[in-house]
Amino acid sequence: MADFTSGLRPADPQGPSLLAQERARSSIDVEQLAKHLLSRNDFLGRQKRILSILTRIPLFSKRNLLNIARPDRYQLGLARAKTLRRLSLKHGWDQEDYLMAEYLMDEMGPYALQSSMFATSIREQCSDEQKAYWLPKVENWEIIGCYGQTELGHGSNVKGIECQAKWDPQTKEFIIHSPTLTASKWWNGALGRTANHAIVVAQLLLPGPENDKYESYGPHQFIVQIRDMESNKPLDGIVIGDIGPKYGYPGMDNGYMLFNHFRVPHGALLSKYSGVDIEHGAYIKPNNPALVYGTMTFIRAQIIMHARLVLARAVTIAVRYLSIRRQFSDRDSKEACAPEEAVLNYPTVQIRILPLLATTFALHYTGESMYKLYWSTRRQIENTGDISRLAEMHAASSGLKSICTTLAADGIETCRRAMGGHGFGGGSGMVGLNNEYLSKPTVEGDNWMITQQTASYLIKRMAEVVSQPNFKPQDSIHEQFQEYILGTKDSRKNSNGLDVVGDPFALVAAFKQRVSYLAHQMYQARVIETEPWTSLMIPLHRLSCAHAESLLVSNFYEAAFTRISPPSPDQATVDILQTLFRLFALFTLRASASEFLVSRTITVDTVAHVTPAIQKLMTQVRPHAVRLVDAWSIPDYLLESDLGSYDGDVYNRVFQRAHQENPLNMLTFNSDWRSEEIIMGEGEENASKRMQALALGVAGRVRSPSLSSKL
Amino acid sequence: MADFTSGLRPADPQGPSLLAQERARSSIDVEQLAKHLLSRNDFLGRQKRILSILTRIPLFSKRNLLNIARPDRYQLGLARAKTLRRLSLKHGWDQEDYLMAEYLMDEMGPYALQSSMFATSIREQCSDEQKAYWLPKVENWEIIGCYGQTELGHGSNVKGIECQAKWDPQTKEFIIHSPTLTASKWWNGALGRTANHAIVVAQLLLPGPENDKYESYGPHQFIVQIRDMESNKPLDGIVIGDIGPKYGYPGMDNGYMLFNHFRVPHGALLSKYSGVDIEHGAYIKPNNPALVYGTMTFIRAQIIMHARLVLARAVTIAVRYLSIRRQFSDRDSKEACAPEEAVLNYPTVQIRILPLLATTFALHYTGESMYKLYWSTRRQIENTGDISRLAEMHAASSGLKSICTTLAADGIETCRRAMGGHGFGGGSGMVGLNNEYLSKPTVEGDNWMITQQTASYLIKRMAEVVSQPNFKPQDSIHEQFQEYILGTKDSRKNSNGLDVVGDPFALVAAFKQRVSYLAHQMYQARVIETEPWTSLMIPLHRLSCAHAESLLVSNFYEAAFTRISPPSPDQATVDILQTLFRLFALFTLRASASEFLVSRTITVDTVAHVTPAIQKLMTQVRPHAVRLVDAWSIPDYLLESDLGSYDGDVYNRVFQRAHQENPLNMLTFNSDWRSEEIIMGEGEENASKRMQALALGVAGRVRSPSLSSKL
Repeated sequence: MADFTSGLRPADPQGPSLLAQERARSSIDVEQLAKHLLSRNDFLGRQKRILSILTRIPLFSKRNLLNIARPDRYQLGLARAKTLRRLSLKHGWDQEDYLMAEYLMDEMGPYALQSSMFATSIREQCSDEQKAYWLPKVENWEIIGCYGQTELGHGSNVKGIECQAKWDPQTKEFIIHSPTLTASKWWNGALGRTANHAIVVAQLLLPGPENDKYESYGPHQFIVQIRDMESNKPLDGIVIGDIGPKYGYPGMDNGYMLFNHFRVPHGALLSKYSGVDIEHGAYIKPNNPALVYGTMTFIRAQIIMHARLVLARAVTIAVRYLSIRRQFSDRDSKEACAPEEAVLNYPTVQIRILPLLATTFALHYTGESMYKLYWSTRRQIENTGDISRLAEMHAASSGLKSICTTLAADGIETCRRAMGGHGFGGGSGMVGLNNEYLSKPTVEGDNWMITQQTASYLIKRMAEVVSQPNFKPQDSIHEQFQEYILGTKDSRKNSNGLDVVGDPFALVAAFKQRVSYLAHQMYQARVIETEPWTSLMIPLHRLSCAHAESLLVSNFYEAAFTRISPPSPDQATVDILQTLFRLFALFTLRASASEFLVSRTITVDTVAHVTPAIQKLMTQVRPHAVRLVDAWSIPDYLLESDLGSYDGDVYNRVFQRAHQENPLNMLTFNSDWRSEEIIMGEGEENASKRMQALALGVAGRVRSPSLSSKL
Repeated sequence: MADFTSGLRPADPQGPSLLAQERARSSIDVEQLAKHLLSRNDFLGRQKRILSILTRIPLFSKRNLLNIARPDRYQLGLARAKTLRRLSLKHGWDQEDYLMAEYLMDEMGPYALQSSMFATSIREQCSDEQKAYWLPKVENWEIIGCYGQTELGHGSNVKGIECQAKWDPQTKEFIIHSPTLTASKWWNGALGRTANHAIVVAQLLLPGPENDKYESYGPHQFIVQIRDMESNKPLDGIVIGDIGPKYGYPGMDNGYMLFNHFRVPHGALLSKYSGVDIEHGAYIKPNNPALVYGTMTFIRAQIIMHARLVLARAVTIAVRYLSIRRQFSDRDSKEACAPEEAVLNYPTVQIRILPLLATTFALHYTGESMYKLYWSTRRQIENTGDISRLAEMHAASSGLKSICTTLAADGIETCRRAMGGHGFGGGSGMVGLNNEYLSKPTVEGDNWMITQQTASYLIKRMAEVVSQPNFKPQDSIHEQFQEYILGTKDSRKNSNGLDVVGDPFALVAAFKQRVSYLAHQMYQARVIETEPWTSLMIPLHRLSCAHAESLLVSNFYEAAFTRISPPSPDQATVDILQTLFRLFALFTLRASASEFLVSRTITVDTVAHVTPAIQKLMTQVRPHAVRLVDAWSIPDYLLESDLGSYDGDVYNRVFQRAHQENPLNMLTFNSDWRSEEIIMGEGEENASKRMQALALGVAGRVRSPSLSSKL
């Protein structure tokens, strides 16, 4: 629209010049730091290569996403997923390339399960014969798959699922059946409208010795064709649908599915580890399932690495925008018309953003450390068969998944709120980010539930320490536990507790000391006093959080102080990383200060110095904030944020999105309450019908609303 | 759809029977408690009366809201707003009735500013002559209004707004002008597509004594016609539009507006308190603006009362659903197939939900107390002209607005996450609630900014205490401050600190002691050591939070222990209220335990007992949880939640919404990646065009060079 606004520009100072000044204030070598952070699997090179392909495809534009109806949004998701598949063939992408494309498109589309859960199940749970049959079809995308585990009535408690697979010895088939409504599969991605095949998790029921009463052998995986390959309609005996709108994932068709005595052949049961004897209907017992924990650790390491990039995205937007945004002048200024301050200069804004900036690095080094642990444990198992480290690895990954996804989910919203009004707008890039990520604290193990596994492990280890032959009750239990479990024995504590403010290593020791104290308390309560598990759940959760925080702090310390991993940045940058370490650790300590006090790790006098120390560290980080987020190398296409773009041209972008691209502004409305007309000129009767249809949707029409009757 | 699922029901036990059991476990008289909580302005009677009208109107159905496109969503909002206006005339609603309808419809529609900010400005800022002209037009809805204060470049800092109103002594007109892009009005509700008039806040510029250089007299309000009354198009010289999608408020057209030397008459300046002499162009100074604070206090009391109902809504859904939802059996159970536990029985779930249940009551009693303070202060001013209590009231209302809206906003998300997978679904009723409420920590005074006003007040009062003629430095400053400011002198502290676990009143004393300690610290830093204000912002924020929490605790204590207000519930219910008080206060104390320790209010030994005490209190509250949320009387129409409906028929409702009402399920899709077709039978070419249009939106239709260059 050409009008007088085309001659206007934002009030000075301009965003781009402000960001240039910010970048000039710091000597951090962004490229070097980016390489240090993002060299694994050639992340940076891959990002650049895939990005240049994606941004040339108009269908992949993100500009209109918040304007369209949910049914249309799924269709766009499907169209994009198809295009992505074709691109991957054209350019010969490997799996990592494909994942990079999904990350940059920032969309969980209807094919997202194909090469993840669907293919993985077939690869890892099928017998060789099954694999030979199914894997080529999956890898060539001849069939489109999904993974059907969770149900309307059961999520976390997989053992409780109700869907049944009953062996019929007569016909040598399994009868898959949903005996109740709550047995309906629920939430399964790609199931709702897309997939023609599914991995279905069902209770395996086999007849007893006399072929009479059926017994359950627990949940097992079956591969089932669910839709006709021509019409894409559900097969007879199966009811399927999309579960409807939800928080985030608008382009994905999360589905429901019920079976009415639906028969599948003997070969449908994925039978690498267990099976049913086709002749006698006897159960074939599975091998040691411990290796499953290994895979879970790998997935959780990926979740942590993803969490760091998601949080980095929010922090990038916040740091850039808040360096540009000005509001109020200094209260103590003597000038009559003092210039307004950059919002990021206010300590009340810094305290919300800069510890989160430090957190992105904390997550990074722990994610790296989890990968290393996974690969070394895997090698150990493959070479020696020794699975002794699996439990430690699983405990760490559970506690870390819980805390890292909570940190990222809460962190996004903290950044959004710190951005005031514009943090609210659709052009902030925060609305979709928030909505999409909010599933993470729930999926892959609920964050308040999986911590029990970590706590349970720590109690067992504490019991081992106490029952050691060389255990000396006269010594400090905590020191012995630390030495035995946590790999350090360091007690620099004097009568004033640890000097967490002055000595970086004291922070590491403080976090370990707290774990040890809480672990011993829980050992005492559960093992000695045999208190009911349920009654201990709150302190058990705290114990797990303490352990996970201790790992975050230790790994960060190691990376910044003792063993900076190559390609390493220059010393000036390492100094900043050390400052970020102290900021992260002190901020985390402050949030649970009373636990450090109760465990006599620090004193009340020390606590009083923590907040001033945090504030001082923040002033040291502040000049480097923009360069530090630059190092995370989040491209503008991924940010999709008027506030956080690399160039800092905030207000022109915000205005253009509203003034040039908002479909609502193409229409003029009749705002007179006495008229039922809505769009000027459409007439009262048309408007009434249209509005009624919008309000009632399917409920009002019975038959399909025309999805194309938009505007 | 009639299929085999119509014969299925959820696995036992059924939700309705579980809720019936829950209700049978408690003897709380729900009706009596509801009257105690909701008698102000006949809330309950009004709710019943308005509800029965609204639920008969098909246009007011909420079933389809998450499926429709944003431009349609605004149109539906406009249609509903018109219907609501007509209903209000038909039924002779007063303002309270109208607000009740808006509350129950849970929609901020395009007329929402008409009787609030627009009418209020005219009533309170117009001269008698102006009022006589404008008020009838506003009250008859002949004109539709909005309120244009915030701008693209300025929100909280009203003094910094850039829009100008320059007095032209020749023509006796004001020239309203936007000199920059950031001067654009921004965020203003109803402006985008609806309103034909606006209150515009602009810097008043008057020529100097020689009619030469202009001087600014700060922001003033002008009433301006902005659209043609026939065509509803913006008048020449004004550019207006809707700012686009944002977090929540999809039915509202938040707008932007720029002026190009737009002339308005002398009478456009609202001139009850200040004005411009039409003859000489001289400024007429305003009266004491202190009364504005009074109105703000009233609005903030309303915000607190709204926060309690919003939080009650989230807690109602969570308590009901989590009483029904079962997952896992007790780990210590000896039974082979122990029944699964209600999720609300797990302490790790209780700790997230039950303190929030207690918080609804805490907010309630403080909201009540704020109303009382407002009316008594107003009476005092009207009767005696004594405005001495305004500052106290304003300080309290600022601190409370900050903390109460944060508690509610965070509380909603805490409830949602506690509900696991289904908390995620569109049928939870939590998605819209979350999105809508997330503006509240930002609007009406940013929650991290307005706390400075509270802290500033407390420092002044501390300075007064210290400079009192009878101040005795040898006595405890804190006791003298408490007596002077906080109205109590109670020091039950012994060498073990206050007995906050055992003695309810000790909790009140502890919160006051903490305020006094922090206030004295800030007095010392700011007044004695003259530290820069900005450097103190973090502890100043904490001081304000401590004061607000102290008010919440004191008011709750008073209501539950010393002065239960009529109509009062029976003693058994009062006992529960007292338990809820202790739960709220101890939970709040625990969250900031280190501040209580640093201020020597409690000892480290006491802290160790707080969590077990909280857990014990929760087991006392647990049996009453369902009846307690019932007392908040949130109707199903407002909840719009399959999980939280009064009858507890969770799974049937969740399934029906997906299976009967999801428009996406009316279509069958071509999921073969080799075909560009999307809907089965539509053909590849049609699909390609449609998908391209969806992706690019307006950007694909109108000239937008920058977008295509970016892609």
